[in-house]
Amino acid sequence: MPANMTAWNTAEIADLDEQTLQRVDGWWRAANYLSVGQIYLLRNPLLRTPLSADDVKPRLLGHWGTTPGLNFLYAHLNRAISQRRQSTIYLTGPGHGGPGLVANSYLDGTYSELYPDVSEDDEGLRRLFRQFSFPGGIPSHVAPEVPGSIHEGGELGYALSHAYGAAFDNPDLLVATVIGDGEAETGALATSWHSNKLTNPRADGVVLPILHLNGYKIANPTVLARIPEDELRSLMIGYGHEPYFFEVPDDTADPAAEHAAAHRRFAALLDEVLNEIAAIKARAADGDETRPRWPMIVFRTPKGWTGPAEIDGNKTTGSWRAHQVPLSSARDTPEHLAVLADWLASYRPEELFDDNGRLEADIAALAPPGRLRMSDNPHANGGLLLRDLRLPDFRKFGVDVPAPGATVAEATRVLGEWLAEVVRLNPDNFRIFGPDETASNRLQSVYETTDKQWNAEFYSPDVDEHLARVGRVVEMLSEHQCQGWLEGYLLTGRHGLFNCYEAFIHIVDSMFNQHAKWLKVTNHIPWRRPIASLNYLLSSHVWRQDHNGFSHQDPGFIDHVVNKSANVVRVYLPPDANTLLSTYDHCLRSRQYVNVVVAGKQPAPNFLTMEQAVAHCTRGLGIWEWAGSEQLGADPDVVLAAAGDVPTLEALAAADILRTRLPELRVRFVNVVDLMRLQDSTEHPHGLPGREFDQIFTRDRPIIFAYHGYPWLIHRLTYRRTGHPNLHVRGYKEEGTTTTPFDMVMLNDLDRYHLVMDVIDRVPSLQSTCATLRQEMADKRIAAREYTRAHGDDIPEVRDWVWPDARKLGTVAAGAAASATGGDNE
Amino acid sequence: MPANMTAWNTAEIADLDEQTLQRVDGWWRAANYLSVGQIYLLRNPLLRTPLSADDVKPRLLGHWGTTPGLNFLYAHLNRAISQRRQSTIYLTGPGHGGPGLVANSYLDGTYSELYPDVSEDDEGLRRLFRQFSFPGGIPSHVAPEVPGSIHEGGELGYALSHAYGAAFDNPDLLVATVIGDGEAETGALATSWHSNKLTNPRADGVVLPILHLNGYKIANPTVLARIPEDELRSLMIGYGHEPYFFEVPDDTADPAAEHAAAHRRFAALLDEVLNEIAAIKARAADGDETRPRWPMIVFRTPKGWTGPAEIDGNKTTGSWRAHQVPLSSARDTPEHLAVLADWLASYRPEELFDDNGRLEADIAALAPPGRLRMSDNPHANGGLLLRDLRLPDFRKFGVDVPAPGATVAEATRVLGEWLAEVVRLNPDNFRIFGPDETASNRLQSVYETTDKQWNAEFYSPDVDEHLARVGRVVEMLSEHQCQGWLEGYLLTGRHGLFNCYEAFIHIVDSMFNQHAKWLKVTNHIPWRRPIASLNYLLSSHVWRQDHNGFSHQDPGFIDHVVNKSANVVRVYLPPDANTLLSTYDHCLRSRQYVNVVVAGKQPAPNFLTMEQAVAHCTRGLGIWEWAGSEQLGADPDVVLAAAGDVPTLEALAAADILRTRLPELRVRFVNVVDLMRLQDSTEHPHGLPGREFDQIFTRDRPIIFAYHGYPWLIHRLTYRRTGHPNLHVRGYKEEGTTTTPFDMVMLNDLDRYHLVMDVIDRVPSLQSTCATLRQEMADKRIAAREYTRAHGDDIPEVRDWVWPDARKLGTVAAGAAASATGGDNE
Repeated sequence: MPANMTAWNTAEIADLDEQTLQRVDGWWRAANYLSVGQIYLLRNPLLRTPLSADDVKPRLLGHWGTTPGLNFLYAHLNRAISQRRQSTIYLTGPGHGGPGLVANSYLDGTYSELYPDVSEDDEGLRRLFRQFSFPGGIPSHVAPEVPGSIHEGGELGYALSHAYGAAFDNPDLLVATVIGDGEAETGALATSWHSNKLTNPRADGVVLPILHLNGYKIANPTVLARIPEDELRSLMIGYGHEPYFFEVPDDTADPAAEHAAAHRRFAALLDEVLNEIAAIKARAADGDETRPRWPMIVFRTPKGWTGPAEIDGNKTTGSWRAHQVPLSSARDTPEHLAVLADWLASYRPEELFDDNGRLEADIAALAPPGRLRMSDNPHANGGLLLRDLRLPDFRKFGVDVPAPGATVAEATRVLGEWLAEVVRLNPDNFRIFGPDETASNRLQSVYETTDKQWNAEFYSPDVDEHLARVGRVVEMLSEHQCQGWLEGYLLTGRHGLFNCYEAFIHIVDSMFNQHAKWLKVTNHIPWRRPIASLNYLLSSHVWRQDHNGFSHQDPGFIDHVVNKSANVVRVYLPPDANTLLSTYDHCLRSRQYVNVVVAGKQPAPNFLTMEQAVAHCTRGLGIWEWAGSEQLGADPDVVLAAAGDVPTLEALAAADILRTRLPELRVRFVNVVDLMRLQDSTEHPHGLPGREFDQIFTRDRPIIFAYHGYPWLIHRLTYRRTGHPNLHVRGYKEEGTTTTPFDMVMLNDLDRYHLVMDVIDRVPSLQSTCATLRQEMADKRIAAREYTRAHGDDIPEVRDWVWPDARKLGTVAAGAAASATGGDNE
Repeated sequence: MPANMTAWNTAEIADLDEQTLQRVDGWWRAANYLSVGQIYLLRNPLLRTPLSADDVKPRLLGHWGTTPGLNFLYAHLNRAISQRRQSTIYLTGPGHGGPGLVANSYLDGTYSELYPDVSEDDEGLRRLFRQFSFPGGIPSHVAPEVPGSIHEGGELGYALSHAYGAAFDNPDLLVATVIGDGEAETGALATSWHSNKLTNPRADGVVLPILHLNGYKIANPTVLARIPEDELRSLMIGYGHEPYFFEVPDDTADPAAEHAAAHRRFAALLDEVLNEIAAIKARAADGDETRPRWPMIVFRTPKGWTGPAEIDGNKTTGSWRAHQVPLSSARDTPEHLAVLADWLASYRPEELFDDNGRLEADIAALAPPGRLRMSDNPHANGGLLLRDLRLPDFRKFGVDVPAPGATVAEATRVLGEWLAEVVRLNPDNFRIFGPDETASNRLQSVYETTDKQWNAEFYSPDVDEHLARVGRVVEMLSEHQCQGWLEGYLLTGRHGLFNCYEAFIHIVDSMFNQHAKWLKVTNHIPWRRPIASLNYLLSSHVWRQDHNGFSHQDPGFIDHVVNKSANVVRVYLPPDANTLLSTYDHCLRSRQYVNVVVAGKQPAPNFLTMEQAVAHCTRGLGIWEWAGSEQLGADPDVVLAAAGDVPTLEALAAADILRTRLPELRVRFVNVVDLMRLQDSTEHPHGLPGREFDQIFTRDRPIIFAYHGYPWLIHRLTYRRTGHPNLHVRGYKEEGTTTTPFDMVMLNDLDRYHLVMDVIDRVPSLQSTCATLRQEMADKRIAAREYTRAHGDDIPEVRDWVWPDARKLGTVAAGAAASATGGDNE
């Protein structure tokens, strides 16, 4: 917290003096005026001449309905922040209310500081209005371009999750969060109220939810505005809050008087709420860590408040018709133009701006000073506060690999041991989020240095293992919450990861989209400082959902991710424990990316020493000479490639069969960790230049590629490569059920025997000569299937599989790896 | 409703006589016994010999924790159903409780009727146990293989949405819905409680939510089990329910007595609840349509109830340790084996099954007769009840197209006129779901024949347009709800569609996954009858989010969909109004698919007469001779292809420029409606055989493909095609903002000028000769950008664009189409 801020001061309940009332009302009118101006006006921003059709934009785009309420809240928060010197950020759930947030950040001076061409004068106002929702200008929403925002809100539902993410480990921060009553109908928002059971009143900041009941969505009333107040009160109490109700009537004969009364009432209510928060904070500081009933505000105002009551004979203010641009023909009809002129004039701009177009000093005085301005709060530009993580040397956590495959480990368990140390070294700016799967994903070592944060009721320790009032791990069975919390945590300048079952990360596909878009845009906003990457750890993956079956088998998140801008997405498939360590160390050091890491949690063979792992991960892909059968100076006959732990194991086994049975065949073995290396360097920053790709994969030899996910993704990444016509990919082709791991690879033709058959089918010299071997492989597959169905387990040959080529590989205990008996399942 | 069912009878509050008590308890013990048996036993199902290690499965996979509670509820519902003859289906939110549902459907005889090899005797029991979670057997969850289920529950969160979908238009159906307290933490579930504001007590069925507080997830307590009961009560009241609390203690000295007491208490509670439901239904039948406070049950029982209290010294029953397989070493250690033997014996199987292994007749008598059995209720096998829609002739709703491009229409508005008639003709088995976007997506004509169903408070008609207590359109701002309702509606044998903004359909990516998986599996289950397809209408698409900008621009749902089994997914991109009509008629007639239709809502030119549209859609793709400049008998020089409305417009404009400026160039114009045609016929049932593909796209000519979505998808679909190396795709490459439609295509190099440049770059004969034209195109793009940024609108050349080749095309008013001024934005 910057030095000029203090936290959780109590103040007298406001009884606004006339000057303060005028300031608040003036600010509100100014913000409303600037909002309407942005939506409608191309020029003549202060109406120095009578409004003409030419002053109106040719296309009217924006959202008015939510904006005056947002402005009202902003003005009142300004007053309270100034008085209490309370560090506060403002999250705009109804993010389409962009003009309001732009207006407020302009009024408090931040906007002109960051965008000097939008100056505090007539010309600046003209630019401010013109740029809004205009080609080459700024978006219509509370986009990354808007100072003070960490939340776009274009896709509704995530305001509260983001807010709690921002509040974690920021004990002095107030996160004022406006939730639209439309947004409140989304699933993500509906469950995010429960975040108050996962936060700590002493160690974390405070989220103040403000449920903005403006009553309507695009074309419908909202559910929460159309249930009795008692029912809504019960709902909020049920969510663990103490609701404070504020309401202004839809129709009023004397707006000025009603607005003044509203200001007085709301100022008092806000002070009451902030005092209650301060009291809770004080109790927490005194050691009371039980869950308080946090206050929240139900803010019921007419949609489009202060706008035209009727347009073309239809009720507008207080209806869904106020949602976007109420006067769609303002440029084209004198009737609408006249209504617009009256509307603008109703804010009395001549009282708000001086002759140079600058906000009157008395109104401007409402803004808090410096970084207490919500639009300038450093928490809303998290990169400003970002500290590098203290990372322990991951090499020290590596597993011993005397020879490839000679030892077995659960990769994520090994990672967990390193993460435990990461947690220990970074007690206030690193968190692990997961939907009740952190232990299931085998990261349980982290509980040696931390606990799961929990603030609901506690039972006895025999059932409440690793639960504590404060802890670095936060778990709730909602992927939306995990994603939203992590985003909020990162956007306010901290670090973290989200561990999840691979299949169910699709639940947050759309949230990932929005975060990736945010990152892409912020890369081009100079004043936005880089933030830590969003790191996924996807385990319990498609090949090892032995007990849950088909519903839990989906590797498609990778496909989803690679559609986003190449500058912000990275995908890694480390094949063993040491490569996972090296990969994750890299991810936790990175900035402004989304890193997707898919890793196994079941016992599996280790292939690379730590030194080899680091080298391999640094290259992103490479030839494993020890696994192939190339001859010096001779081109290979075939390339066997693999990406992912299970595919690597199967491809290695296939290579072994080939080495034994076809010793003359020159097999090159390639492993891919960094999937983006497959793309051309012109397509992705990690892409391999064509010549290097050809050197590894050859230009003309058959490539049999065993891939973790849907096989066509590999084609999509490599279709421009010289050797692409020779590429044959095996992967998950949506065949699955509850069955053994070996049956799973067989169902999808990814098993070792099928890979050998693929090699025979693709290498011209083998097609005619190896019919017998091919038939043998085909028979083995069927025998394996039959054995599995008869015995309910893997075939013994696989379970007890010992790598035969001891000359290169040593004695391999990979059997335990491929076997299903090795790991329990969660 | 079959003739032997009645609905909403009232009964005396149960005071269980001893015989009924024994029946209920016997059923419960039998179901629990069969559940444990499925998880653990390979053979010796009735323990005719002492349990040995060899009787135990080598891999123990399944979920015990939730199962005894599910069985308890099932037993009690059986009693009540028999007494009241109430048609009831059972939805298992905790779908991992598969062994319980399999057990119950076996006990009531349905299972053996559908799977005769699993007979009602010793051998049948052995097969029942062995097949569970076993290779070649059945999945561990309540998968489609389980009779009576319309809900897998492997991915948590959708139980209540599915339940309300099933209840719509089934006024006599009770949908008993168990919600796990883990599931209750998900976003989708949290908002789905509000479904009671969208259903009608007279015209729809009744959902009875049973919140199963078993207290724990995989490794954590649940939130709702760890808040005070008063708070939970408030939450349920806030959701609009009257909660009935039922609790059994965790520890008990005398299980038999406690179980008997629990049966008595629960039977009385269930009767009270069902009587209250009957009373509400009676009031509704008398004309009272106001929203009742529907009862719901909070069912608090120990996790793993009746299982071992402790294992290895750790508390198991009543803890998260009971979640999966409590005795993981039952086969490997005598200690665990002994505990298992005691556990099985505790259910006294000798009292439950006769000497032949058949359920004792007195216990079996608890099952309701015939189709009143929940596992045999036809609503849970919706195809049994499916009636074809009565579809009006879509040809009569077509737009007049005297020449290609000669008229303009909003495609979805035209579709809406047809849908209005579909609604009128099918008043009880067709619904339209949308997240507050049905009017925004321009389907508002449907309100001429129906309303939006709403059961919260009503205000005056000037703000409550088209709201009614009963209506065919259901809107709530939750894509999860729309998807879940529609799935539930389809799975119970009805028809419908989900209209959504294209970008935000990603919110239900994972729900789509699960539904597609369900369809794929049911295709191989003979007793499951085909259901109507799940139809998406995605509008407000990536190219026309002029006012919302980047957050609303994402065409990736198509990419997501095509990863699923080719047998169940279809993607259509009709380029104009008549093709949209033809496409949607086809979709509403289809079965067992997910149909994704992307269509524009803004004014756009019509290209095909209805006759042409039908022929074009039937082929799925085809050459538009009128748009190209081919010469009889000569191969084209270049192929210009397009899929999607905006790409088609740009490609047509490019073809026009080429025809004017390079009259000698032979351009073939191809339009693709059915995206799956691009795949090979071996990959997708709609795929075009290679020879036909080559005839259309040529084997060796450059193909410039203008595509609606991410360009690489076209490569992924066509990489095996002969001509693929010559394919060059333009599409959305994640560049966007709030700007004009024309600026959007330019930002992504999809604009007409760039397509002309692409042709010049790819046709060898043009590369050297057309440098001037190429430069002119490049200049035009820059000029267009500059003009747009200066004037905030499209370039006049586009806005006022008139197709010059009147000989072929007539006078074209396509200008209004490309212009932004034509449509408002929502």
